Amino acid sequence: MSETLIYPVEALKDYVSRFFIALNVPEIDARIAADVLVSADLRGINSHGVIRLHSYYGDRLMKGAIDPTSSVQVIQESPATLALDGGNGLGQVVAYRAMSRCIELADQAGLAITTVRNSNHYGIAAYYAMMALPEDMIGISLTNSQPLVAPTFGRTAVLGTNPIAVAIPAGAEMPYVLDMATSIVSIGRITVHQKSGQPIPAGWGINAQGELTQAPEEVLQGGALLPLGGPAELRGYKGYGLSLLVDLLSGVLSGAAYGNHVGHPGKKSTADVGHFFAAIKIENFRPVDAFKADMDDYIRMLKATPKIPGQDRIYIHGEKEFENEKNYREHGVPLLSEIVESLVSAGQVVGVPFDLEAL
Amino acid sequence: MSETLIYPVEALKDYVSRFFIALNVPEIDARIAADVLVSADLRGINSHGVIRLHSYYGDRLMKGAIDPTSSVQVIQESPATLALDGGNGLGQVVAYRAMSRCIELADQAGLAITTVRNSNHYGIAAYYAMMALPEDMIGISLTNSQPLVAPTFGRTAVLGTNPIAVAIPAGAEMPYVLDMATSIVSIGRITVHQKSGQPIPAGWGINAQGELTQAPEEVLQGGALLPLGGPAELRGYKGYGLSLLVDLLSGVLSGAAYGNHVGHPGKKSTADVGHFFAAIKIENFRPVDAFKADMDDYIRMLKATPKIPGQDRIYIHGEKEFENEKNYREHGVPLLSEIVESLVSAGQVVGVPFDLEAL
Repeated sequence: MSETLIYPVEALKDYVSRFFIALNVPEIDARIAADVLVSADLRGINSHGVIRLHSYYGDRLMKGAIDPTSSVQVIQESPATLALDGGNGLGQVVAYRAMSRCIELADQAGLAITTVRNSNHYGIAAYYAMMALPEDMIGISLTNSQPLVAPTFGRTAVLGTNPIAVAIPAGAEMPYVLDMATSIVSIGRITVHQKSGQPIPAGWGINAQGELTQAPEEVLQGGALLPLGGPAELRGYKGYGLSLLVDLLSGVLSGAAYGNHVGHPGKKSTADVGHFFAAIKIENFRPVDAFKADMDDYIRMLKATPKIPGQDRIYIHGEKEFENEKNYREHGVPLLSEIVESLVSAGQVVGVPFDLEAL
Repeated sequence: MSETLIYPVEALKDYVSRFFIALNVPEIDARIAADVLVSADLRGINSHGVIRLHSYYGDRLMKGAIDPTSSVQVIQESPATLALDGGNGLGQVVAYRAMSRCIELADQAGLAITTVRNSNHYGIAAYYAMMALPEDMIGISLTNSQPLVAPTFGRTAVLGTNPIAVAIPAGAEMPYVLDMATSIVSIGRITVHQKSGQPIPAGWGINAQGELTQAPEEVLQGGALLPLGGPAELRGYKGYGLSLLVDLLSGVLSGAAYGNHVGHPGKKSTADVGHFFAAIKIENFRPVDAFKADMDDYIRMLKATPKIPGQDRIYIHGEKEFENEKNYREHGVPLLSEIVESLVSAGQVVGVPFDLEAL
């Protein structure tokens, strides 16, 4: 078992900001990117948090594969629609600006969609969807990503794990926040099993010959993840359809790369990732109070549903993450020692020593 | 094996129209409802076609549970948003009008969302999404439905099979048309297995105790369908999240019934089904020609993906249905003899004899 070290959230954000600033990211942008990255750890999604600081972002900034200035340009605009070019900037900064503008438009028009081309990996999709919550709006955030998933009946990874994130406000209850890869699991889950020498459950992935495998290394080496649903008998073509949908909206509609053209974070070339954001103002459809009262009622009804043997709680999407965030804000963010080691070595490369003291 | 009888599509539509007219549905509305119902059979989705003519619609019109005049009222409107009350009309008629208005709004605003409360079962979700295709728009159609699905860790059906339909135009290739229940399978698939005495695959459903079962009658009698993904290990909570999302958008945002409050077609009381429609005008984001060229390229790339052993073709969503439609328009619509028998007996009840000659 790895050791877990605990850091205060603001100190961790400050470190990540300094790291980005050292790589010529303007301070205001560095703070945005830091907030998004640390948010993942704060919500308990360590796979998408500071562990990727160097491999997904720092390394690419150093190589010139990401432009530190994130100069977002408007391609086309109307009162409810906005098409942006992300200028090959940091995905977090580009996405934050795009969703901010989407919310501004929706505040006037009642709803808005913003597409983005020429961006990069943007971290956790839910971050941007959740920006709509304080405005009493529904937020939607989609992105395409590097090819890792095989279409149904295919044996090669040509689709991304293309996540769907939707945030919907409630009243007294926590908001509904869905943030799901359209594959059964992320590639990170496969890597975790590989590192620990554990087989993966049948259904998660296939080998290079297209056969179901329980050997994680076979998925990683020439194999592919399966879309949500898994094999055709359990309707994996629906997950394939959702992965494709996310790419058609975030890649093709935006004019970004799509399918097997989307860049890999490990490559030196630009990634041309595409995003899709939407904001829907609830009061344009019904009074916000009535909406929130129904949300609370619905959440309570779900939680009161009789349970299967061995389970005593039904969760709403985002609930575990809100509980983590509350806990970690108070008591600090837990990071496995291997994540801390990755920060230490990243800090050495970039010249910003990781000097935080664990709690 | 049941016998299959084949009918010309226009004659079948004409019969369904006459059936609705006899139940006091205005002729123009009857033709809309007939077109939607027969479309399902034409696309090969017999489970949602004329087999339901009496059980879902005729019977409820006769009982006064559906209002034949479908008087749709505007609750709230802005240039890109529209909230409607369906007046407890036929779901197909209400949905057709709602999506027509949504497309009109999107033509001006670049995108639009229309919500509907107080409606009924609307047939195949894809019908309305596909109305956007000739306008070079992306169409989205969601609806909630009677409770049949258990949330993850729950053992009681409190969620609907709540479908997601999205239609996206291509160029030379067929459009992408996703139309998927957010459960692994529809309840109709379970009934088919029950009738034929076949066990269902493990994962499709649970019994009243919340245990996985392969006995279709156990799912039907107090059990529940499982959401897409199935058990937690294969990430069924994602399918649960999608089912809930569809209901939050079509039930809660519209102010309709939601969750276990949504009416069952077999009940005499009003169903208060909710729908959600969106239309997105492609040219507000990028030139339509460039978009369609990328769609074609993407579809061809997917089809050229190396196949798993035993498979020689990768499908795009909607492709099989377009092929069925082309074939059945030319050669007639095939209906199993049990479907024909249901039409004969429905015709007797309503006083509109099913007098079509099979081809």
